[in-house]
Order: sequence, then C-alpha cells, then structure tokens
Amino acid sequence: MNVQKIEATGYTFTDGGICAAKGIRANGLNCGLNPNKEKFDLALFASDAICESAAVYTSNKVKGAPILVTRDHMEKSGAKMRAVIANSKNANTCNANGVEIAEQMCGLAATALGIKPEEVAVASTGVIGCDLSIEPFETHIDALAKGLTYDGGHRAEYAIMTTDTVAKELAVTFTLGGKECHLGGMAKGSGMINPKMATTLNFITTDADIESALLQKALSEITKVTYNCISVDGDTSTNDMILVMANGLSENEKITEANAVLSDGFDVRTDAPKTDYEIFCKALWLVLVNFARMLAADGEGAGKLLTCEVTGAVDRENGIKVAKSVINSPLVKCAMFGRDANCGRIMCAMGYADAEADVNKADIDLCSAAGQMPAYRDGFAVAFDEDFALKVLSEEEIIIKIRLYDGDAKATAWGCDLTYDYVKINGDYRS
Amino acid sequence: MNVQKIEATGYTFTDGGICAAKGIRANGLNCGLNPNKEKFDLALFASDAICESAAVYTSNKVKGAPILVTRDHMEKSGAKMRAVIANSKNANTCNANGVEIAEQMCGLAATALGIKPEEVAVASTGVIGCDLSIEPFETHIDALAKGLTYDGGHRAEYAIMTTDTVAKELAVTFTLGGKECHLGGMAKGSGMINPKMATTLNFITTDADIESALLQKALSEITKVTYNCISVDGDTSTNDMILVMANGLSENEKITEANAVLSDGFDVRTDAPKTDYEIFCKALWLVLVNFARMLAADGEGAGKLLTCEVTGAVDRENGIKVAKSVINSPLVKCAMFGRDANCGRIMCAMGYADAEADVNKADIDLCSAAGQMPAYRDGFAVAFDEDFALKVLSEEEIIIKIRLYDGDAKATAWGCDLTYDYVKINGDYRS
Repeated sequence: MNVQKIEATGYTFTDGGICAAKGIRANGLNCGLNPNKEKFDLALFASDAICESAAVYTSNKVKGAPILVTRDHMEKSGAKMRAVIANSKNANTCNANGVEIAEQMCGLAATALGIKPEEVAVASTGVIGCDLSIEPFETHIDALAKGLTYDGGHRAEYAIMTTDTVAKELAVTFTLGGKECHLGGMAKGSGMINPKMATTLNFITTDADIESALLQKALSEITKVTYNCISVDGDTSTNDMILVMANGLSENEKITEANAVLSDGFDVRTDAPKTDYEIFCKALWLVLVNFARMLAADGEGAGKLLTCEVTGAVDRENGIKVAKSVINSPLVKCAMFGRDANCGRIMCAMGYADAEADVNKADIDLCSAAGQMPAYRDGFAVAFDEDFALKVLSEEEIIIKIRLYDGDAKATAWGCDLTYDYVKINGDYRS
Repeated sequence: MNVQKIEATGYTFTDGGICAAKGIRANGLNCGLNPNKEKFDLALFASDAICESAAVYTSNKVKGAPILVTRDHMEKSGAKMRAVIANSKNANTCNANGVEIAEQMCGLAATALGIKPEEVAVASTGVIGCDLSIEPFETHIDALAKGLTYDGGHRAEYAIMTTDTVAKELAVTFTLGGKECHLGGMAKGSGMINPKMATTLNFITTDADIESALLQKALSEITKVTYNCISVDGDTSTNDMILVMANGLSENEKITEANAVLSDGFDVRTDAPKTDYEIFCKALWLVLVNFARMLAADGEGAGKLLTCEVTGAVDRENGIKVAKSVINSPLVKCAMFGRDANCGRIMCAMGYADAEADVNKADIDLCSAAGQMPAYRDGFAVAFDEDFALKVLSEEEIIIKIRLYDGDAKATAWGCDLTYDYVKINGDYRS
C-alpha cells in the first residue's frame, strides 16, 4: 500500500532511516533464529558519540525481559546510551532466564564495541514464551559489529521485521540555529498493536543536541498523538518500545528549554514552530506520525489504511477515545474490507467508547481520494448513493470524519481493515 | 456445535422455550422485512395474565429506539407487562422517526391483543440506520395475533434470529413451595456481542410469582456473571436487552423477600438454594448461563466455544476483567482457530487487562475433553508436548484455566474463535 506522507514546511524527507543522523553505524544479519537464512534476525546500531536518550515502554503488565533490562540500563547510565542490539523471531518474554539472556546480549554488544553494558539497549520481538539461547548471539556478534556501516540502516531494519510486509524507515532534515540536523529511524510491527504509553519497536536517532529530560518530555507528549493513536488488533504488546537517541553531532546549540507541546502553547500537529525545542518536536512528530500511519497501513493482513478524524471533541483525550473505538471495532474493520458503507457500526462503536462525548449528536462522513460522502447528521442516518459509497470505499486510504459538538478539540487515530489474511497469519501455527 | 449444558440439582431442562411457562402464547411470521419469505422476521408473544417484569438494557450511549420505548413503557406501567413485539432485519436505530415507529409497533400489538400500549415491550435487531416503515407491521399484525399459540415459541425465536445458525431456546422446571414452576426463554445474537449491563436480545418468561423489584434485583445480579461475561467481537450493541416477565400462574406463594446472590450470602453458581428467592435465582441463572454459552458458541463464524476460567482473583470483578480480556483478544482467538498453543498471547492479553491482578505470577492450563495441558507456571512458559497440545485444541470447547494468587474469587467468561467466516459474514455487503 502506498501511504501518503504527512509533510511540514521546513522539513525535508531524506533516505537513510536510522543512519540519516551523523555518526550512526548499523548492521543486520541472520544469526540462525530464523531458519530462513535469507531473512535477517539480529540488528545492531551504534553512535560515534554518547547520546542523550529517552524511551517509552509498553504499559502491559507482562513485560518482555528486554524492556526490563533497557529500562534498567537507561537508569544506570543516566539516559546516556550508545548502542542498541535487537532481534526478531523470539520476544524473550515469559522465559525464566529472560533477563539473564538480555543482559548477556548487551554485554556481548558492549564488548564488541568497547563501551559499557549499561550504554546498550536491547529489544526482542517474536513469539512469547520460547526459550532463547545466548549461543547464536555469541557466534555472530563479531561479524555483526565488524559489518557496522554509516549506511547500514536498512540491514538493521530488515533484521527487526516480523510479519511486516514493507520496511519502515523514515528521516527528515531540518535546521536548528543555522545547523543542519537529521532525525530518522526505523520501526517494526504488524500485529499485537494497540500501543498504550508506548509502541511497537521503534528506534529513532538524531544528531541534534538536546538534554535527555527534554527529549523524554518531547517523546512522551508526541507519543500520545502518534503511536498511542494506532491500533491493528487491540492487542497491546509485551515488548513495545520507542527509544530516541540524540548524539549532538550536528553541533547546534544544546536545547535546554522546553515548553509544552500539544497543550495550550504549541500544537505540534498544526502550528509553525518558533523555538528550537518546537522545531525539534515538530521533526520528531513528523517522523513518528508517518511511522504510525505506515504501521497501521501494514497491519497484519491489511488492505486499507483507516484514518478516523474527530473534531469538536470536549478535549483531545476524549477525542482519541472515540477515534480509537471506531478504528478498533472488528465490525467497522470488516465493513471497510467489504467496501460496505455500514455506518451504523461506526455509530455503535462511538456509543460504546468510554469517552465523554455526546455521540448521539454526531455527524459522520466517509472520505477518500474519490470524494466525501455524508452518512450521518445529528446522530441519524442520511440517504446516500450506494454507487458513490462503493467508489469512496474502494480507495486504499479511507478517512472516517466524525464531527462532535462538545468542544473544539480534535484527534486522529489510525488502523486498518480486518481481512481473511489477518486470520490466516494469526491462525497459522506459532506465527 | 454441540454445547454442553451446565446443570443443577433440582432443576430439569424441558422444551418449550418462551412458552414453557403457563399462559404464554407466541407466534412468528415473515412480514416482508426479510426478502427471503421462508425466514420469519416478526415475533409476538403475550401472557394470559399481567407480568411482574424486569429488564436490563445496553450501556451503549447510542440506544435503539425500541430500547427507549421499552424503558419508557416499563416506567409507565410500573413494570407490569403483558406482551412483546420484536422484529429482525432492521435495528430501528439512528432513524429520525425511530421512536415513533417503535411506539406504533406497540400500539398495533396492544390493539390486536386488547391491552394497553404501555404493557407492550418492543425490540428490533438488524442493520442500524435503515429506514423502517410501519406498513409491514400494519398489514401483518392481525395474522400474527391470530396465530398465537401455547406452543409457538419456536416460531417467535425463528423470527428474531439474524446471523444465528442455531435457535436458542431453553427452559427449566423447578419447585417453589410445592408448586411446579417453569422458567424459559429465547435468545438471539451472533455478532456485535460484548454485553455491558445488558445483553443481546433475550426474552424470559416464568409462571413463578415474584415482585418486580426482586425480579429486577435477581436479573441485574445474575446478568453480571452470565451475559456480561460473553464476548464475540468486543462490539457492544445498540439494541441489547434482556426482558424477564413473571405471570404468577404457577400459584406459588409470591416471593417478596430477597437476599444478595453472588455476594456473601449465596453464590448462585455453586451453592444449593434454600429460600424461594434463591431457588428462583438459581433457575434464572441456569437459563441465562446456558444461553450465554450458546450465544458465545454460535458467535459469527465460530468453530469453537472458548471458556476462560479464572481462580484466585482478588475479587469477582477483577477476575471477570482478566477472563474477558483473554477471550476478547483477536490473537488468542486466531490461535484457537489455528489449534496453536501460543499461550504467550494469553499472557499478553492478561497483561493488558485493566484489572487489579498480579498476572506475572499466573499459571495457565489449556483444557478440553481431550485432557489438561500445563502451559505456564509462575508467569513463565513450561515445555509441553506439541502433539498433545494439538489434540487438546482440536476439541470444540476449549477451557483456558488461569490460576491467579491474588485472592480466592473466581470468574468465567465465554467467547469463540476468530475465523475466516467472521470476516466473510461481516465483510459482506450490509450484513
């Protein structure tokens, strides 16, 4: 699916993904976890300079061992990280020796790179509750480290992909105090996606210079309107993580002052940035929001990207609740798959959203590149032309526009349709 | 699917459904809403004597017009009802003239039966937001009323079925103060099922004599551990309703004293009843819990009934939250469809349940008629035999047993697998 990019003035999309920022080397290879030797399963990337770092983790109470170890290393190092080791095919979650293995993975990477273990983050994705041996990492760490290159981002991305059908790499170039900066990253994720407080695996690097506390503030706020607004299946993963690492190699004047984004001061989604912090936040938002859309569009089995735009909400949080309820409804998702303008299912999903919203007064429009079709007004169905509806719903991106009359806040959530292939992918033995 | 009945000493299952109670006549026919003339779409049933009545309704904020009208009639009549008119194929929800049409339906039934309009409840199920004309009801009400018989329950049930593949009728005989009593009913529902405070359409009649306030208390409490514990797709319908009508024709001494069921005094699920109220509650529970299992087993596209039994929960509410999170997870449902013992997905769903539960200490077993297979102990995966797992998961009813160590409360939830047919049924045009 060709996902249209959200763009912003002053920011240019570039290639390079995780390696778009200066001083980032990356690599990926097959270490034997995946029996298909053509598919990479182990990634490593490292920064030439120490990085101010920030992370958000899954809110699932069952947390993968890599989450526990990365959180611990972020604390021990004072959020000063240098490298990430990550594998696919095995989540290293619910394993009795999981933490031990995750620590050993960091130790191997640290030794190979000549840095401290607590400067290494670790991530794993794949099947939960499957034994993971340290052996494949031990035998491949040297080749992995030796193969690090400044253009190796794609190899690393390929190594963390699971049921993803497209690679997810993005980067933008922008200017901070006259210095050219880069911010880019890679993401994976296709199923078990309903991020809460965090996301599927996502690594972002930047050569901008910014204090880790501010980086954390930016990440936490922006996650709320990007990754936390996507859902493929309502299943919040045990291993979700976004890690952002800023090595300062662009030599901009370090960002040390922050204002609130999204709230009163600066709406990162619509406003033109003024301060350095706002400029940086807009870059981070731009990459995360486009990753969010790519992840939703590549949801397991998906044929369509569903966007639900809510306006007139009492506040952003309640708008998000309504929008997420709609894009999470299996019945709405099946209707979109079937190109069926069965908008009563949208009303139904709005009605059971745990949100402060007077949904019985809502207007609903179905939109796509083919046009905009009014479906509900003031909570009641309106007559529409079935042929036009079919045309609107035959496009790859469908936008469900919901107008509430509770206030002036807006929210957007992204999801995908529910297809035979979702069942096929997830009904297959130990996918 | 052959769903095994939960039974209880002192209660005998009988035929008759909605007509098992004395003095209940029912009928069903095709009035033209369904273009397939073989399929009935309009039901009517009436009691020879006025009924003490109780109801629970959907908590969806978008409520079908029949819900609003029935609630109003229950208030106006002081919960003294006589008849129910119900149609399938059109939910009469989100229609500008919906309340008017629902009132007219009650009026037609009242005239034909010679009773007051406020003694009639109305229910509709089908597509939301589709115009509904009074014309088919006007032209068929006489034939419908004339055809009422004391054994017509099945015709009424057939008229309210939508994507249901099996008729859902149940009745039990029991004794109150030496008098033989009957309690039975009919249910419909296959998709858009995640009852909260109420249920899919369900009508229960009894010839026991019980005050309406006590009937309401019994229904509200028992709904919590029966209908509110099932989910097919997480979509809470706009038209859910359980209505119970008690006409007292069995001439037992009227039940006027109640104790709490489920809480300290009397656990309707396990305890032997002593008082008349407890005996009645157990009958109501027995019918509702078996309907709940039938509804889950006949979920849209379902090939398997999933039962999740939680023990050791801190309290019943939190146990239900964990159990429902598991049976609602699309990934768990797909794994069960694929006969894949991918229990990490169960751990994951327990972890994101919004429940007070120390899920990282849980044990999980997969059970069926083929045996019991330990899968997790103390939150960690344990080795198991794949052949045995496949055998266990090849049965039609799968029980996921979860042992928590938070307290001594227990809870059960019911759902079904997620199959290609669910997508087919709901991706099809305006199903």
